[in-house]
Amino acid sequence: MSKRDEKAITPRSEDYSQWYQDIVLRAELADYSPVKGCMVIRPAGYALWENLQKALDGMFKATGHANAYFPLFIPMSFLSKEAEHVEGFAKECAVVTHHRLGPAPGGGVRPDPASVLEEPLVVRPTSETIMYAMYAKWIKSYRDLPLLLNQWANIVRWEMRTRLFLRTTEFLWQEGHTAHATHEESWKEVLDILDIYARFAEEWMAVPVLKGVKTDSEKFAGALKTTCIEAMMQDGKALQSGTSHDLGQNFSKAFDVKFQDEKGDWQYCWQTSWGVSTRLIGALVMAHSDDQGLVVPPKMAATHAVIVPIYKDDTGKAKVMEAAASLKQSLASAGFGVVLDDRDTVSPGFKYNEWELKGVPARLEIGPRDVEQGVCVAVPRVSTRDLREGEKRQKENIPLSGAPEALKRLLDDLQRALFDRALRFREANSHRTDDYETFKSDIEKGGFFWAHWCGNTNCETKVKDETKATIRCLPFEADKEKGSCFVCGAPSEQRVVWARAY
Amino acid sequence: MSKRDEKAITPRSEDYSQWYQDIVLRAELADYSPVKGCMVIRPAGYALWENLQKALDGMFKATGHANAYFPLFIPMSFLSKEAEHVEGFAKECAVVTHHRLGPAPGGGVRPDPASVLEEPLVVRPTSETIMYAMYAKWIKSYRDLPLLLNQWANIVRWEMRTRLFLRTTEFLWQEGHTAHATHEESWKEVLDILDIYARFAEEWMAVPVLKGVKTDSEKFAGALKTTCIEAMMQDGKALQSGTSHDLGQNFSKAFDVKFQDEKGDWQYCWQTSWGVSTRLIGALVMAHSDDQGLVVPPKMAATHAVIVPIYKDDTGKAKVMEAAASLKQSLASAGFGVVLDDRDTVSPGFKYNEWELKGVPARLEIGPRDVEQGVCVAVPRVSTRDLREGEKRQKENIPLSGAPEALKRLLDDLQRALFDRALRFREANSHRTDDYETFKSDIEKGGFFWAHWCGNTNCETKVKDETKATIRCLPFEADKEKGSCFVCGAPSEQRVVWARAY
Repeated sequence: MSKRDEKAITPRSEDYSQWYQDIVLRAELADYSPVKGCMVIRPAGYALWENLQKALDGMFKATGHANAYFPLFIPMSFLSKEAEHVEGFAKECAVVTHHRLGPAPGGGVRPDPASVLEEPLVVRPTSETIMYAMYAKWIKSYRDLPLLLNQWANIVRWEMRTRLFLRTTEFLWQEGHTAHATHEESWKEVLDILDIYARFAEEWMAVPVLKGVKTDSEKFAGALKTTCIEAMMQDGKALQSGTSHDLGQNFSKAFDVKFQDEKGDWQYCWQTSWGVSTRLIGALVMAHSDDQGLVVPPKMAATHAVIVPIYKDDTGKAKVMEAAASLKQSLASAGFGVVLDDRDTVSPGFKYNEWELKGVPARLEIGPRDVEQGVCVAVPRVSTRDLREGEKRQKENIPLSGAPEALKRLLDDLQRALFDRALRFREANSHRTDDYETFKSDIEKGGFFWAHWCGNTNCETKVKDETKATIRCLPFEADKEKGSCFVCGAPSEQRVVWARAY
Repeated sequence: MSKRDEKAITPRSEDYSQWYQDIVLRAELADYSPVKGCMVIRPAGYALWENLQKALDGMFKATGHANAYFPLFIPMSFLSKEAEHVEGFAKECAVVTHHRLGPAPGGGVRPDPASVLEEPLVVRPTSETIMYAMYAKWIKSYRDLPLLLNQWANIVRWEMRTRLFLRTTEFLWQEGHTAHATHEESWKEVLDILDIYARFAEEWMAVPVLKGVKTDSEKFAGALKTTCIEAMMQDGKALQSGTSHDLGQNFSKAFDVKFQDEKGDWQYCWQTSWGVSTRLIGALVMAHSDDQGLVVPPKMAATHAVIVPIYKDDTGKAKVMEAAASLKQSLASAGFGVVLDDRDTVSPGFKYNEWELKGVPARLEIGPRDVEQGVCVAVPRVSTRDLREGEKRQKENIPLSGAPEALKRLLDDLQRALFDRALRFREANSHRTDDYETFKSDIEKGGFFWAHWCGNTNCETKVKDETKATIRCLPFEADKEKGSCFVCGAPSEQRVVWARAY
């Protein structure tokens, strides 16, 4: 027991941040690397990323987008072509200055002084500039539009304070970059993609999100407008989970991305860019997991079920193992990811704990009596029913003959239950507020605060300075109820959502 | 016509190298980027890479491997930990020395002098060192073995002379890295993976390959032994298409990757690494394409068929377009990638040329008379029969009602025909040779030369210096016929394969 305790997960109530780190490390999603700020994504974490890729990539392709790949390196001068972009992005970057290592005078190696690059290269912090230099070459006519490309890539933004998945110097993402003939079309693209992101977050990740527009001070450097999806974590903080930018003609003018319209006149393209990153894996962990460990929504899981055989003697074992193997076979044939934990060296209880820690959605226990009755006992990772206090953990006998159908039903229920629970949590922690003083103390408990704002950056900055809360978005679905700014009292067109954020 | 001619593809016979470049650029597989040595992979090229990934990834997973992701950056000192590795790899690398851009005195930006890194970071030229630093942390016991990981990643090796796909400063690849308890096991892994690579090359890419072992002077820096697959291009040159390395305990000793065996004794792991890269796309282009353009083996194609409607008047058009749309629908439902080229602005002949250039495996022509007869005319990109001189290009009526089955048959035939053609070509250009003087002139025509070699590096170097030919491999399938070295006459155990190579 001492070994288990040593490795116990810090409870959320005790230290939320430590709890998160414990889950990520102990469920073996990721690990720290010897390179400051860079993480290693381990197989269990990468499998989540692969499922995310598969789902989103399918949605991008179904809406006419194609994948391409652009260089990792960007000439330093490119980053200063778009005025706002250089301010916002051309700062904390990895800069390549040499192209060779050579022997160091004292032994070992050093950057060879004879290999200094004429122009330093920056490791992409985002690819607008390098991509649009190519777009300028490829796009000639309205017939070449819309150009709808996406890239799956690694990105580097130097970070001083990092957290696994949530903020790392290198991370993985997808970045879509499109060019259109009109602003109407490009704005539609911005919203269509935001809908895809919201659908993915809600239907796959079981994380409810608010869609809206960022304020000017929170928008992407170089964009006209940034739209976003915002999710609430279990500590009541917000996590920006995806952004879709209306770039207007800012970059097309800086990079000369032009097309001849039907009349033969040259026009600048209207562009969009949009992305989600490995940060979403952090959101998934923080939205659903508990003090027992990781919780993975079934649609994101690589392993859907673990079979734990239970027996006391060799006769029991033979019977149980045969049934377990056949159960595994029938579930795998039906397309489920399934593991049969046949280890002899640890107890069933130990296995339960381990697979709960790893977040596998369903556990199937099977003992000699179950085999006789032609059933196994299914236990979802998180209860899909409202269990009253004192009521036993939800278990259900499912027939071995119809196991795939029963498992599918259990997983569907769990997927829905996780979303519902997260939505209930968000609703319980969302507040309409009109009083700034009350807000200043309430924000300590976390949550989303719907309050009126006059639109002035000064009020936004004041709130941020005094409370660390920011405007997460001007939500699309807000009632257009007028009111007065809860900071300065000036007229306001709608409530906006304030929260502390990751 | 002048526009077409301007863009005509250089014939292979005239300038093979220019022909290759024309195909890659005009079929829009890739483009040059503003960053020296780095290319842009365009959607048509990336789709080939995605199909490669899907096929190989499936084979890796089916054999127990999992994907993970390790940092892009490697601390400079790591590269000098394994003695041979530093010699072979720690040279032409991109070196990151700063982590911030700041304002330059004369305007613009520059690397901020205050942001110099304590230790420079190298952009991974391969990931042995950074991965094994983690393996040392994760592996404790024989129970943790084998560790079978793979990573899909971008790689940077500074290149002075680059060619699209074949040799670029940045490229995409997969790198597998495994750790085992015994050398017997790790050597089996090396060969199992080489078999996977060979199967992929032959069954998916329709490129026949030789499997064998590299000589010491051609092996991976740090490996005990490098195995490889070698393919012949249409100019008779060899292209190394994949490597699988037996690393022995060289890296495990350098990085302290140890495990406790069943007796409790500490042992160093036995390791392997293996990879294929975007270079394979270059091999695919060079192995099959012709003077009309790209040829894509059906199993690698994203678009399997293009439907070209043919009509003279509006009545004809209505009838043809309806049948074409329904044909497209039935093929798409059956899982084929299919395009209906309904452009009104260009002629059918123009379309034929364009889709041949792009390498789409099958063209389906459909006109009013075809609709009446319930058929369309199928034309494979490359003839699947031996056509005699003067015989018309292979065409075949296929019934609209059974189009998916007929297309499948056509594509299967084409896949096989491409492999057979490539194999015949390789056989026609493979020679047994015992005379070095004859070889010196014959090598000018290209081809694989099976000749005896004494095993001495001096002879190898002499041949390379005098003819630019290298030993591609000591093939596994050679008859173990003894003989004497064709350079020095000393005894030889087997013939080895010499060729000029990409």
